[in-house]
This record gives sequence, C-alpha cells and structure tokens, in this order.
Amino acid sequence: MELEHAFGVVLKRHRKALSLSQEELALRCNLDRTFIGLLERGERRPTLKSVFVLAQNLNVSPSDLVREVEKQLTQDS
Amino acid sequence: MELEHAFGVVLKRHRKALSLSQEELALRCNLDRTFIGLLERGERRPTLKSVFVLAQNLNVSPSDLVREVEKQLTQDS
Repeated sequence: MELEHAFGVVLKRHRKALSLSQEELALRCNLDRTFIGLLERGERRPTLKSVFVLAQNLNVSPSDLVREVEKQLTQDS
Repeated sequence: MELEHAFGVVLKRHRKALSLSQEELALRCNLDRTFIGLLERGERRPTLKSVFVLAQNLNVSPSDLVREVEKQLTQDS
C-alpha cells in the first residue's frame, strides 16, 4: 500500500470515529470537502501542514496519526 | 515558530547528528540538495511523503520525527 492510501485509510477511520461527514471535517479544518475526499482515496499527497491541521481537528496528535500510518503501511505490505 | 521552521530545525539537527552534508542527505534520499536547504530554512512545505523519505534516511521513524516537530513548536511558541 502506498503512503497516500495508508494516510487516507487512517484519516477516514478518525473522521468516522468522530461521526463527522467529510463536509463537517472540511469546515472544521477550513479545507475544501473535495480535498478531504481526495485525501481519503489516496489521490492527493498531504503536506505536513495538512497533517497537523487534520490531526488537531480530529483530536489526535500529528505524531500519533503518523504512527498509525506507519502501522497501516506495515499491515498491508 | 511556524511549522515549516520547526520542521527545518529538526531536520537539520538529525542531519548534523549523522555528520551528513546537505548533499549527502540529498543523495541518500534521491532529492535535490537545494530542496534540503530550503526545508532546513523553513522555506518549503514538506509533503508527508518527503517526511517519510527523510526520516528513513535519517534512521528515525517518521512519527518520532513529527513528535520532535511538535515539541519544537511548543518550545518556541
């Protein structure tokens, strides 16, 4: 699994855990809903800045989010 | 301190700890030396992909690198 896809899986998992729609998360983050969808499908490369903004609005630390991405990559490789 | 600057400080610290020049790190990562310099000065936004590639070549996990960036941000704010 590529990094972008692993990030998408983790992002979607956290969003769903908070029962947020893509639109609600986008509003919280001041990002475009389309961008959230592209990230979740692994079709965009997030910047570190996006990772920090998303993590903050998902009530998780950026490093914990990245650790989950590492695990997701190992799990599916 | 902005995120990009915090990342630059952490990146430079790890590179120096391994006694690598910017050029040597760039070669290891298959990135441009100029890009490493821009990142270290906080003049470029790294993608999550760049963070993973750099971390791998600095013998640190991406999540640990990101945790150091979080600390750097707290320390200097």
